[in-house]
Amino acid sequence: MNGNRFGRLFQVTTYGESHGDAMGVVVSGCPAGLELEEADIQRDLDRRKPGQSMITTSRGEPDEVRIHSGLQDGYTTGTPLGMVIQNKDARSGKYEPFVTAPRPSHGDFTYSAKFGTRNWGGGGRSSARETVNWVAAGAVAKKILNENGVELKAHVNQIGDIEAPEVSFEEMLEHSEDNEVRCGHPETAEEMRDRIDEYQQEGDSIGGAIEFEARGVPRGLGAPRFDSVSARLGQAMMSVPAATAFEFGLGREARRYTGSERNEDWTFDESEAQGASEDASGDEPRARGDPIPVGNDHGGIQGGITTGQPIRGEVTLHAPTSIPKTQTTVDWETGEEKEIQVVGRHDPVLPPRGVPVVESMLALTLVDFMLLGGRINPDRMDDQPGEYETDYHPRSPENVDS
Amino acid sequence: MNGNRFGRLFQVTTYGESHGDAMGVVVSGCPAGLELEEADIQRDLDRRKPGQSMITTSRGEPDEVRIHSGLQDGYTTGTPLGMVIQNKDARSGKYEPFVTAPRPSHGDFTYSAKFGTRNWGGGGRSSARETVNWVAAGAVAKKILNENGVELKAHVNQIGDIEAPEVSFEEMLEHSEDNEVRCGHPETAEEMRDRIDEYQQEGDSIGGAIEFEARGVPRGLGAPRFDSVSARLGQAMMSVPAATAFEFGLGREARRYTGSERNEDWTFDESEAQGASEDASGDEPRARGDPIPVGNDHGGIQGGITTGQPIRGEVTLHAPTSIPKTQTTVDWETGEEKEIQVVGRHDPVLPPRGVPVVESMLALTLVDFMLLGGRINPDRMDDQPGEYETDYHPRSPENVDS
Amino acid sequence: MNGNRFGRLFQVTTYGESHGDAMGVVVSGCPAGLELEEADIQRDLDRRKPGQSMITTSRGEPDEVRIHSGLQDGYTTGTPLGMVIQNKDARSGKYEPFVTAPRPSHGDFTYSAKFGTRNWGGGGRSSARETVNWVAAGAVAKKILNENGVELKAHVNQIGDIEAPEVSFEEMLEHSEDNEVRCGHPETAEEMRDRIDEYQQEGDSIGGAIEFEARGVPRGLGAPRFDSVSARLGQAMMSVPAATAFEFGLGREARRYTGSERNEDWTFDESEAQGASEDASGDEPRARGDPIPVGNDHGGIQGGITTGQPIRGEVTLHAPTSIPKTQTTVDWETGEEKEIQVVGRHDPVLPPRGVPVVESMLALTLVDFMLLGGRINPDRMDDQPGEYETDYHPRSPENVDS
Amino acid sequence: MNGNRFGRLFQVTTYGESHGDAMGVVVSGCPAGLELEEADIQRDLDRRKPGQSMITTSRGEPDEVRIHSGLQDGYTTGTPLGMVIQNKDARSGKYEPFVTAPRPSHGDFTYSAKFGTRNWGGGGRSSARETVNWVAAGAVAKKILNENGVELKAHVNQIGDIEAPEVSFEEMLEHSEDNEVRCGHPETAEEMRDRIDEYQQEGDSIGGAIEFEARGVPRGLGAPRFDSVSARLGQAMMSVPAATAFEFGLGREARRYTGSERNEDWTFDESEAQGASEDASGDEPRARGDPIPVGNDHGGIQGGITTGQPIRGEVTLHAPTSIPKTQTTVDWETGEEKEIQVVGRHDPVLPPRGVPVVESMLALTLVDFMLLGGRINPDRMDDQPGEYETDYHPRSPENVDS
Repeated sequence: MNGNRFGRLFQVTTYGESHGDAMGVVVSGCPAGLELEEADIQRDLDRRKPGQSMITTSRGEPDEVRIHSGLQDGYTTGTPLGMVIQNKDARSGKYEPFVTAPRPSHGDFTYSAKFGTRNWGGGGRSSARETVNWVAAGAVAKKILNENGVELKAHVNQIGDIEAPEVSFEEMLEHSEDNEVRCGHPETAEEMRDRIDEYQQEGDSIGGAIEFEARGVPRGLGAPRFDSVSARLGQAMMSVPAATAFEFGLGREARRYTGSERNEDWTFDESEAQGASEDASGDEPRARGDPIPVGNDHGGIQGGITTGQPIRGEVTLHAPTSIPKTQTTVDWETGEEKEIQVVGRHDPVLPPRGVPVVESMLALTLVDFMLLGGRINPDRMDDQPGEYETDYHPRSPENVDS
Repeated sequence: MNGNRFGRLFQVTTYGESHGDAMGVVVSGCPAGLELEEADIQRDLDRRKPGQSMITTSRGEPDEVRIHSGLQDGYTTGTPLGMVIQNKDARSGKYEPFVTAPRPSHGDFTYSAKFGTRNWGGGGRSSARETVNWVAAGAVAKKILNENGVELKAHVNQIGDIEAPEVSFEEMLEHSEDNEVRCGHPETAEEMRDRIDEYQQEGDSIGGAIEFEARGVPRGLGAPRFDSVSARLGQAMMSVPAATAFEFGLGREARRYTGSERNEDWTFDESEAQGASEDASGDEPRARGDPIPVGNDHGGIQGGITTGQPIRGEVTLHAPTSIPKTQTTVDWETGEEKEIQVVGRHDPVLPPRGVPVVESMLALTLVDFMLLGGRINPDRMDDQPGEYETDYHPRSPENVDS
Repeated sequence: MNGNRFGRLFQVTTYGESHGDAMGVVVSGCPAGLELEEADIQRDLDRRKPGQSMITTSRGEPDEVRIHSGLQDGYTTGTPLGMVIQNKDARSGKYEPFVTAPRPSHGDFTYSAKFGTRNWGGGGRSSARETVNWVAAGAVAKKILNENGVELKAHVNQIGDIEAPEVSFEEMLEHSEDNEVRCGHPETAEEMRDRIDEYQQEGDSIGGAIEFEARGVPRGLGAPRFDSVSARLGQAMMSVPAATAFEFGLGREARRYTGSERNEDWTFDESEAQGASEDASGDEPRARGDPIPVGNDHGGIQGGITTGQPIRGEVTLHAPTSIPKTQTTVDWETGEEKEIQVVGRHDPVLPPRGVPVVESMLALTLVDFMLLGGRINPDRMDDQPGEYETDYHPRSPENVDS
Repeated sequence: MNGNRFGRLFQVTTYGESHGDAMGVVVSGCPAGLELEEADIQRDLDRRKPGQSMITTSRGEPDEVRIHSGLQDGYTTGTPLGMVIQNKDARSGKYEPFVTAPRPSHGDFTYSAKFGTRNWGGGGRSSARETVNWVAAGAVAKKILNENGVELKAHVNQIGDIEAPEVSFEEMLEHSEDNEVRCGHPETAEEMRDRIDEYQQEGDSIGGAIEFEARGVPRGLGAPRFDSVSARLGQAMMSVPAATAFEFGLGREARRYTGSERNEDWTFDESEAQGASEDASGDEPRARGDPIPVGNDHGGIQGGITTGQPIRGEVTLHAPTSIPKTQTTVDWETGEEKEIQVVGRHDPVLPPRGVPVVESMLALTLVDFMLLGGRINPDRMDDQPGEYETDYHPRSPENVDS
């Protein structure tokens, strides 16, 4: 209700304001026995942190995470992980003249309208600084997913009017972390970089988009309707600061397709049929493998439930609202119009730092569906004994029978 | 978790399958003292029901709602409303040959993959018949909103490649219920109608889009981030059957805009300033009214919280997957490919019947935010005494003090 | 929030008032493949229904359940079960003189204070008639539990000052349904029956208690603290109409025990050790079986988590408030005191009909913990193929790998 | 689901283990504009902290709270409060010999059975150290309640077989913080103190009970059944470490009362009628005041909803399980029985330090019901302007109309 909780079984709770003491996140529902250290989380925080390059804000935050609980001897204990990231380089003074004059299209005014007070330091909780918490939690989710056969990645596929061509998952993995823009197509990345520079020099900012993909997601995840994978991903992605659109599969373009164009015939997954002889399940092996759709215009989701094809979708992020260019606002105390130039340290474009944020929301959403669908043991990672291993695996026979 | 619940304080719970006995919905969190009768709900059900025109399925369902509880003497009692709609015209036989052969791009396969059983009758719970429940619940939400100054409407703004020009809220209200397509622009509606006919005659179907708008939503609703109005609307709209994209404000196009193009300056709401002298709140009247943004590219939401401007967005619905045209599928029992022609009674296009569904999801989302934001008394409509009125209004002073 | 929802993964939603059209309950989260028919539910409804004997209200309700959804060919489909029980014998007239004069210690006044309206027909939703929904849902939960090795039973262990001696689980099973009072100790049952008669003849009513036990609950269920088994059972049991106390294990008496008296030493479960050779888990069999506590003063729960010992606890129900004896009330409209004799059809004692209610709340609580602890496949009962079986068991290898 | 979250609108999320780095708690749903400083929280933490007296553990924790977020200029901002309490004096070494041998009746074994790992440091999350988080959150809840006319207090009313006589709320307030036992009856407190000493010298521990009361709770709070005040208090109180029974009103004794003995007649609240002339609500003043029950055997709750009378109930806490006396346990690694003497620093009795814990759970439960019942503005305390006050009170007319 209060906007700081995400997830149903894998539960994230966050706090922190841009210019406050510290950011913090509690992760509960992480099974025991996951090998985890602060460095696992730091890697993703470093991808999100400010000051990485000329196209990110120059605010100097090391964003070092400290894990307060939920770990013992390098493994999770099944109890909540409490994580804290100190804020170091907050300079609120720069905003003071605008305490009663909201920045155009920023959350300044709506936050004041809601809470009846102005959290003027760096935008308070409306700042995207909050997403540092999501990335910390997302790093844990990713690690669980990886151990359960799910891989995911995002990249920047559009900045302003520069669109990247469609890239494969392998290209995303290979190229998207090699350039400042985080685009999976290196030539386009350069163009994007130049375009961002132009806007930045004009004191302006620009919008863009992030495309994401997850591989290895088992079929049959998601519940009909309100808890469909598409609905829950919709909430997850529309939570990202500055998100104005969410799409999966053909997305917005699906409106132009006929049924016969978009529908994908079924065929047999021959690769599976070959492996069927090794099937230890006791079920009769299926002669020709399972049905799979020819193509992935459906983005991995049919009827709200996963098909086993890659989950693929896209999020649009509008241009940052805080820009040096002169704009007009009003002062609600004095009743006067005034000009405003937002001269703090701000990003000229959001998607490059948004990539780990989108990946995190994807990971958090998927790990929740894996838990809800019974694909991950909620209490204990299956093959990760800790030093004080007790052999009391929740699903082993001597526990279930009493 | 199970896909049949929506809402946090205004809670909807649904059940029912396409070819089952009955559909049902429980609405709880509706304040006492709302004047309500079955006819209020029937009006919206009639807009959604099949067989309205040549471009909807010919299934003959009267869709008559029966309210089992929560009403007394024509007013709600504050306790849950139980509503049931009988299924009358279900003909499952037509699907039988395809029990082990999924329809292309339909939820058939994913439901079987999840539940390990084939709910073959009319698609079972994957059928959009479920939305009859949403419309029944949405009708209650709309009525509460109307009594609290919020009006809303949706219309069809695209079918295939035919796009309607931008229409005003007043045009939506005036025109969208006058044509079978439910488009707020009459000339475009005719074109759309013709295009749908063409596809239908070819045994095909076509995609489209629905635009929605809500007026009178107070500013300051929504909680930062995961419970932002945009995130919750995202989940609501992506729950709609066949939804592949959700956008608000500039939506997907926001990626092409610079900050200076998209940002909206602040000005004073002079209309409010004039009314200020009548302000009974005891607060000092503001000389020049409250700040309002110049324009609504932000779609009524900034930083996830409402600005008081109209909430405006759009949902894309892909083409219906059940089409008479010949397609290819596989039979997982026999291991054979086979041709499939889906000859049941199906809609050739979804948005016309989807309009009341989208309105319902919008209403359910907004009434929840009104309750969460303290704008509606959770226990009792303020000015609607029932016959056995007791004067124990929860917020009247004699109740609060004890 | 609205009082009509119970359960986290196994979710129950109810509606209905004493003198309304019908009672209804939606159960979601029931796995597919459970063999289920209306008769399974009817058996428990018959144990709760009015008019069973001279010590229950004479209201004549057949309480026949109709399942609207979620079943196909005698098996659950994994989608929500919608169930409706019509109200047949409601006679509201008898309460009319007391519309603005509340019954002593009844929910009449508080419901009016909350909702600002008087749901005068039979107490509306404050009536224990609501529990018919719980018993219907509980019957489904019990069936799932039985198929997963958990058995449970409750019986009446006190009426007024007549206490039954401690009985074993086997005695509860054997005797408690053989007498009108539902006490597991036949001699005491007769005494209780006589005592109830005496109070009834005086136009009075009497309080009592219900003891419950569950066997076969695996160890390791429950989460620390707010979601401990004891906390969740506490909520479940305190929801029962007229409940004023909840206890487990030594309960209230634990306050008088020293640590050394109450603590239970650990020993080895030799029965388990013997079975270890048949252990198919691959884990090294434990030489001497698992640790088990010597005794069950802890009632099956330590640190909020199950030990594998029987879960045993108790609920106190106060005397029914609606009694023929003359009492004094006030009329809030007229401002006058008046005498009141509640002459409707009411039970003189609650525990006998409360036994299936307590069993239901126990079953609903436990099935939820089994699902949350990963002991039941959330999508599909493991060994119950339906007629249109598809072999797409969610956890079979061909589904998990994609 | 994971045991670290409490509350529906006023939401608490906790983390931390006994011997971990730090304890932490996130409070969200606290309205903006509450005057708050760390000292407000410290006061209650000091009442709970170890080492207060000879009858508490000697562990030396200063328990200093640090608020990371949600405050500005001494007032809450409406965004989540993140609070951290460092652990300073953890000495895990003492437990090492018992890593694979559980303490009798402690959560050691069940935690291992659940998570498959042994969080051996000080009991990990099963330790009552967790309640430091609850007290921090509860201090915030209490402050909100106080500003809304609700006062509450708890005291120790039984230790072993020593029972305090019934004390008034005023006596609780006056005496219960003046003695180490926290009993509202000074003479009994001395007896209790002596009895505890005796057990402590024998290397044993003893059980006890805490009684609580809340005054000024408005009538009409709570929702029927599963969300009744009694059901939610039941969950809250049964979450308290070592709780084995929860009761309200007559509690367990209600089983012995007839309806005519327990029922309380209605009369008029004459004190209210006198004040009615000053009623500013516009409602017709009631001639003789509102109905109130004669007596409070119902403990402030009828039909699960508050009557406006004091809420009064009781929790039983069993004796601490960690005692120096020799007990028997088993080592699950070696398969051997062994003797165990738990020589860490442990309390000989729980209620004295449990008093602020019970008060906190009561406060958290009540503030939630106040928010759910619309008695507290969810966004903003009504009369507490901050330094950067904006006058955008959510419910003032200029916000609601747009």
